[in-house]
Amino acid sequence: MGPGPSLTYPEVYEAMARPTLGHLDPYFIEIMDGIKEMLQAVFRTKHSLTIPVSGTGSAGMETVLVNLIEPGDPVLIIINGVFGKRQLDIAQRLGAEADALEFTWGKPVDPDTVAQSLKNRKYKIVSMVHAETSTGVCNPAEEVGELVASRGDGAFYLLDTVTSLGGMEVDVDGWKVDAVYSGTQKCLSCPPGLAPVSFSQRAVDSIMNRRTKVPNWYLDMSMVANYWAGKKRAYHHTAPINMLYGLYQALYLVLDEGLEKVYRRHTRAHEHLVEGLEKLGMSMVVEPPYRLPMLNAVRIPEGIDDAEARKRLRYEHNIEIGGGLGDFAGKVWRIGLMGNTARPEHVDRLLKALKAII
Amino acid sequence: MGPGPSLTYPEVYEAMARPTLGHLDPYFIEIMDGIKEMLQAVFRTKHSLTIPVSGTGSAGMETVLVNLIEPGDPVLIIINGVFGKRQLDIAQRLGAEADALEFTWGKPVDPDTVAQSLKNRKYKIVSMVHAETSTGVCNPAEEVGELVASRGDGAFYLLDTVTSLGGMEVDVDGWKVDAVYSGTQKCLSCPPGLAPVSFSQRAVDSIMNRRTKVPNWYLDMSMVANYWAGKKRAYHHTAPINMLYGLYQALYLVLDEGLEKVYRRHTRAHEHLVEGLEKLGMSMVVEPPYRLPMLNAVRIPEGIDDAEARKRLRYEHNIEIGGGLGDFAGKVWRIGLMGNTARPEHVDRLLKALKAII
Repeated sequence: MGPGPSLTYPEVYEAMARPTLGHLDPYFIEIMDGIKEMLQAVFRTKHSLTIPVSGTGSAGMETVLVNLIEPGDPVLIIINGVFGKRQLDIAQRLGAEADALEFTWGKPVDPDTVAQSLKNRKYKIVSMVHAETSTGVCNPAEEVGELVASRGDGAFYLLDTVTSLGGMEVDVDGWKVDAVYSGTQKCLSCPPGLAPVSFSQRAVDSIMNRRTKVPNWYLDMSMVANYWAGKKRAYHHTAPINMLYGLYQALYLVLDEGLEKVYRRHTRAHEHLVEGLEKLGMSMVVEPPYRLPMLNAVRIPEGIDDAEARKRLRYEHNIEIGGGLGDFAGKVWRIGLMGNTARPEHVDRLLKALKAII
Repeated sequence: MGPGPSLTYPEVYEAMARPTLGHLDPYFIEIMDGIKEMLQAVFRTKHSLTIPVSGTGSAGMETVLVNLIEPGDPVLIIINGVFGKRQLDIAQRLGAEADALEFTWGKPVDPDTVAQSLKNRKYKIVSMVHAETSTGVCNPAEEVGELVASRGDGAFYLLDTVTSLGGMEVDVDGWKVDAVYSGTQKCLSCPPGLAPVSFSQRAVDSIMNRRTKVPNWYLDMSMVANYWAGKKRAYHHTAPINMLYGLYQALYLVLDEGLEKVYRRHTRAHEHLVEGLEKLGMSMVVEPPYRLPMLNAVRIPEGIDDAEARKRLRYEHNIEIGGGLGDFAGKVWRIGLMGNTARPEHVDRLLKALKAII
């Protein structure tokens, strides 16, 4: 019940333990095609370049930034937590002229302020985190997408959906997102190791027409795409076969349950948790309209030792929750209700354990 | 029986299907420590920065190059196959002043020619592939290491051991290797998804004293090392937990059998295969002293259609072998005898199938 990895589905473990096929085996290529199709459904996109990258969620972040940024490119990074800061760090390493637009941690991004920034400078890329795992805040992904598109200056809209994908509405096409990445270990309830990404055709064209080669061979989408989507399925690097079996199965389970039903299950578990935490006298960090269902940031009660309490939860009750990151370290706990973890029985067990401890 | 992935050990599948722990869980940290210790044994090194990177073998190549190269650095890349070429491509993307020293495909690197190149220019890095997966050639890793060290000009020696590690002698400390990478899906017989790497203290010091930040956040060893080896085990990215369970188990099995015994098993399977192929009238690409035991390049017999024959092997006999890469496409088959695949019964089954087909 931390900020991910979540509880893996038993069927996903079974899938991962199936015999390892070759990365060019015709049956494995069918599995790859199934994954692409199911990822399109979960991301709600028709983008043909929708694939899992061979690394964890942060490799997804690296992928969208390294493929779209060239040295000197003006980039706006909207920040209200650790993962926005990480985007800024990566953009700077890649030589972007990166402007940081910072908001208070625990509060949502304000679209009016973003609109003002977009008037002041023409950006190639505008990037934001949808669900900030470090604070539990849901940012206005649709509104910011509309703002970027309405400028009509061709800027690409990048969105981090590591924590939101598969747990709440993500609508890549509806929100006009040009490049998006996620992880497998949150609401998809597959172990960590893969990063689903999706690029609009406009973004793909931009990658294919770069002035410079992508300074990252492993994550160069112009080559990776040939393996995942090209007619010849040209070998690039050996794909993580068994992890991909797991992702196939996880996507199947999410879509089989139905996206709307899955979202509702997350919302209900979240409401049940908040009610219970408040009964224990604890207070949530984020105001109700902006709370993420799958990542619940709650203030550590006065007089309670952070590390000691989490140790007791782990050893006496077999439950993991997350500590605070960055500015929230030592002040906040992060309780994950992601994918297979988002069930009332897990919430009840945690509340009982917390009651015994605090 | 292709060039990897090899046949995964059954115990590795079982390990990978164990419940996903958190990446900061104390028990998982014990598993990480076990992996580091076993990797040191397999690499034959005391280097403390010896860890698996969260990506496949090519991410290991990217890791050693991106951490050690800064723009303008003079680098010598020794090339006699696809993977040497890949090193060159990455080094150039990173802005190195890269000199390519090319040798004929299917022939080993000649140390005298390397010695001459080292006299002509002072390099920061000299890089070579130990076992060229594209040709089946074993390069003189020890001799080149001695040459680089004997120059006394502080150059770093980089070695690719993707295909050799765990299947034949690799002696990182004895060969004076400063940075080495491998993959899990070859002679370690774990599915693809992780890249073991090791850096000498001198290489680590160089990384810590770079003029510029590593232009790759995900693979920046100065941060990754804090998570894997630092006192505080600071979160960097979410590690691929279940893949790491698999690697732990695979390393355990290799060391339990004993490195020397494992190497002998590879050599015997290789000799058995070559004898059988020659009886079928087929000829090996590489001269006997330079043949890799785990990657056997054999000329496709006259009149045999490459794709058709491999298709029949796959569908009629359930056996995968590899086609040729680059200059060898359509001319050569690559037969893998890696890790758990390197057993006489597999060789017999392949020989029988080949006899039926050609």
